[in-house]
Amino acid sequence: MMKLTVLYLHPSDAATFDDYYTSIHTPLVHKIPGLLRFEVAHVVATPDGSPSPHFMIAELYFETLESLQAGMGSPEGQTTAADVQNFAPQGASMMICDITA
Amino acid sequence: MMKLTVLYLHPSDAATFDDYYTSIHTPLVHKIPGLLRFEVAHVVATPDGSPSPHFMIAELYFETLESLQAGMGSPEGQTTAADVQNFAPQGASMMICDITA
Repeated sequence: MMKLTVLYLHPSDAATFDDYYTSIHTPLVHKIPGLLRFEVAHVVATPDGSPSPHFMIAELYFETLESLQAGMGSPEGQTTAADVQNFAPQGASMMICDITA
Repeated sequence: MMKLTVLYLHPSDAATFDDYYTSIHTPLVHKIPGLLRFEVAHVVATPDGSPSPHFMIAELYFETLESLQAGMGSPEGQTTAADVQNFAPQGASMMICDITA
């Protein structure tokens, strides 16, 4: 199993970000071919109380690296990736991860 | 549902890191009270081909913020947290996350 992990930095306006993410971006994610599971988590704290640079983590699960690449390379995947700049102009860190345990 | 997400930077020796993580650290994680699910993923690439600063992501799932805090504050949780310096002296970024979708 593979996942695309997306780390979002703090937006200028959290409510606007969340509204867009829920109403516009999430439906695009769910159209990506081969997507098995989608998880979104908001950072609420750190164990040592220090501020986190990250606001939210999104994880898109696929069966294999090939299905992840095919899904993200599809028209639906490209539309979803291009949409990120519409609500996160500060960008996001993306990592392709192999689930090993 | 809540999770503790741990982002590990690249170790000086990946094989030594992985061996320690699998044989020593993982059994400690599984002793943490209240742990519902544990997922480990190695970063294999980024979508744009740029290098990722991160080597591995570990996620520890708990039912509530209270059970996460109780688990990590328990003797088993404290032992697990203290063990991180034994294989990741460069440290790790930890975030407490609320799974919102």
